[in-house]
Amino acid sequence: MEKLLQIEEYLEANKETFESQLIELLKIPSVSADSSFKTSMLEAANWIMHCFEAMKIPAELIPTEGHPIVLAEYHRDDSLPTVLVYGHYDVQPADPLDLWISKPFEPTVRDGNLYARGATDDKGQMFTHLASSQAWMNTVGELPCNIKYLIEGEEEIGSAHLEDFIEAHRERLKADVVVISDTCQLGPDQPAITVGLRGISYFEIFLQGPKQDLHSGSFGGAVTNPVNTLTQLLSSIINKEGQVQIPGFYDAVESLTEEEREQFSGLPFDEENFKEQVGVDGLSGEKGFTTNERRWARPSFDINGVTGGYAGEGAKTVLPAKANAKFSFRLVPKQDPKQIAIDLEKYLRDQLPPGIKMEFKAMHGSPGVVVPQTNPYLQAAVTAIEQGFGKTPYFIREGGSIPVVTTFYESLGLNTLLLGWGLNDDNTHSPNEKFHLADFHRGIRSSAYLWQAIREI
Amino acid sequence: MEKLLQIEEYLEANKETFESQLIELLKIPSVSADSSFKTSMLEAANWIMHCFEAMKIPAELIPTEGHPIVLAEYHRDDSLPTVLVYGHYDVQPADPLDLWISKPFEPTVRDGNLYARGATDDKGQMFTHLASSQAWMNTVGELPCNIKYLIEGEEEIGSAHLEDFIEAHRERLKADVVVISDTCQLGPDQPAITVGLRGISYFEIFLQGPKQDLHSGSFGGAVTNPVNTLTQLLSSIINKEGQVQIPGFYDAVESLTEEEREQFSGLPFDEENFKEQVGVDGLSGEKGFTTNERRWARPSFDINGVTGGYAGEGAKTVLPAKANAKFSFRLVPKQDPKQIAIDLEKYLRDQLPPGIKMEFKAMHGSPGVVVPQTNPYLQAAVTAIEQGFGKTPYFIREGGSIPVVTTFYESLGLNTLLLGWGLNDDNTHSPNEKFHLADFHRGIRSSAYLWQAIREI
Repeated sequence: MEKLLQIEEYLEANKETFESQLIELLKIPSVSADSSFKTSMLEAANWIMHCFEAMKIPAELIPTEGHPIVLAEYHRDDSLPTVLVYGHYDVQPADPLDLWISKPFEPTVRDGNLYARGATDDKGQMFTHLASSQAWMNTVGELPCNIKYLIEGEEEIGSAHLEDFIEAHRERLKADVVVISDTCQLGPDQPAITVGLRGISYFEIFLQGPKQDLHSGSFGGAVTNPVNTLTQLLSSIINKEGQVQIPGFYDAVESLTEEEREQFSGLPFDEENFKEQVGVDGLSGEKGFTTNERRWARPSFDINGVTGGYAGEGAKTVLPAKANAKFSFRLVPKQDPKQIAIDLEKYLRDQLPPGIKMEFKAMHGSPGVVVPQTNPYLQAAVTAIEQGFGKTPYFIREGGSIPVVTTFYESLGLNTLLLGWGLNDDNTHSPNEKFHLADFHRGIRSSAYLWQAIREI
Repeated sequence: MEKLLQIEEYLEANKETFESQLIELLKIPSVSADSSFKTSMLEAANWIMHCFEAMKIPAELIPTEGHPIVLAEYHRDDSLPTVLVYGHYDVQPADPLDLWISKPFEPTVRDGNLYARGATDDKGQMFTHLASSQAWMNTVGELPCNIKYLIEGEEEIGSAHLEDFIEAHRERLKADVVVISDTCQLGPDQPAITVGLRGISYFEIFLQGPKQDLHSGSFGGAVTNPVNTLTQLLSSIINKEGQVQIPGFYDAVESLTEEEREQFSGLPFDEENFKEQVGVDGLSGEKGFTTNERRWARPSFDINGVTGGYAGEGAKTVLPAKANAKFSFRLVPKQDPKQIAIDLEKYLRDQLPPGIKMEFKAMHGSPGVVVPQTNPYLQAAVTAIEQGFGKTPYFIREGGSIPVVTTFYESLGLNTLLLGWGLNDDNTHSPNEKFHLADFHRGIRSSAYLWQAIREI
């Protein structure tokens, strides 16, 4: 107990230090999707390396065919439990830049929130588990259990090289439990442990019509317009009742159980408040399901970007030569991204009209996952969060995807704790991403208690 | 006849001069759609003014609420017929710039073609009628009939202010026949007189979903995605058989007569060659119609541009806040653009799902027109083209729109001669727009003979 008092004092005294450290990391534009940021990716990885060096935890920068992985290993005693912390130092692209109030890579505090790309997803949340270990090392001089850190740089682009890395380092990554903070609380002051994630399957298609843009007067009606075709193909994927139309898409989808539906509907959730937060006056989605069921436990289809033809000011009467779309499905457990890619490509090719060629690109994919609520480490997490937040956490799900969770859970058989310190309105993947600083510090405190609680299991 | 010999000699001797003059005009980036080119618009109008001054034809630069109009008036004798030449000095936007082999506003000759934005549409074609008058003035010292020139700067953006201008200057614009060169030949060495044009109705819609971009994992399936909605709305406009689905759209469309279908099918037209020229291996369009019927005499629907969501490299899992599309219909005679705008807006609004707001913008519109083939000036044009091209012209239609033709024909009751010197593969409205220089000079010669032929009617 004395140790924990020391740590409480350290955390209180070092709030500004932690904030300054996070700000340093957030200044590095580590956008994994865009190859022009490659140098910044390395800079961010090295920043994390230095962080481990400063607390004397051995760490290694391991190259992959993509962006490097940081692997740090604190080993104290074989008899103690071993925690594997997973996080990522890469961030989503920051555009549209003009919608940011302060610049995405110039972290700025307003109203108790720290605004920057990556503030909560995932630099800020990931860093809470480094800060908590700093507190232990700089006071007690040791951590209460063995801790490994696996911090990757490709989460936002589908963790393309991580699965192979994990397979190749099974022994070295051996652990009792995985801790990941890359999710959200249920709401402000409603801390939560996430017990299920959706998977994802991301695609891009490129349509080519005439060899170059044509005059829509002279050729319109006789030459197939690839943008017309694009809208036909994309709109054919989902019907007006929110049901995906690709044959076989729902074959592996399991119905929600009565128990699951009750757990969802038992959570405090204010739909009016949700709409206001999002800024819409109405919601839509798959017929027959509630909002939380739709975003947490049912597959969905979203077009993430379209381009084609004239995008400038005014009118241009052009029949465009090309059209392009990026789109993705969110998946639930047992849906297989590889099979969906095959079925989707066939479904689209069968519809192609004369005069249009399609390039089909399956980008990243990972299945959804639901972890059993019998995980023995869940109680340790509940205790730690009660200490950190002063509230008992809810058990929720999350609509996003953390591909590696499936790998940890299904390939390595590891128990998984998804402890989210973020908020739904933190604008992850959007302009003005933020992290509520109070949650940042509560997260650090929860993490510091978690190491102790896991030891005491 | 001696006069015409003098003119033949002058035209032969001044080929390079005419080309240099046209190149000067093509260097001016007079893009009417983009307000950043406003200064260039004025520069182009003034270039034309100087051209008239040099041949001592009185001309006036008349401001409008948009871009100015050049009106030149050569009056010789009330007893002679009066020709009104119409043309435009504005051009389409030049993008996508990366597809131009030489820069759009740095005119370049390759293989007997002059490449530049506006080369054929319409600076090059319009200038043939100035060059022919130069020839008459500099040899004979006078023109064989009265000629007025109306050269506007808003054709590519729907001639928004021209109709009011014409109404306000009915007396001043009084003429016996209008001559316009802003169309194409049937094919290389197949000169043509165009006797029908399609109309146009151009729209832009802006969809707004959530107040800002959202994470497609956390929100996808529960919050309406405006890009999904955009594809649903646009694809609902036309079915897979190429039929527009807006209620009432075909009400005013007259069936093609047997005579018209025979006239079309009697023209030399090689569909394989057409496909090769366009660069496609198949064509599609409204069921039950031939390629030329589809592009000349049936309405059509083309999306001219779409934007929404992430357009950068790689994947971004975003549920976009906004989506936008520019699209247009080509119309046939008696279809009313204003009524179509009303019907279309209702059709789209009725389909809007919850959580999506739509801004609907009707841009420019003009009905289609078919001129009677009993026009007494047609024979004069046939004679002139036979002199200029050494071939008898075909009577064809054109799928594009020249809004002012309807105004001249229906409001002023003027006979109209659409004498096109361009080719279908001149890439008007596309990268690498060109004008075949031999056609440029044949056009000038035809124009010089036309003034004489009209006088002799």
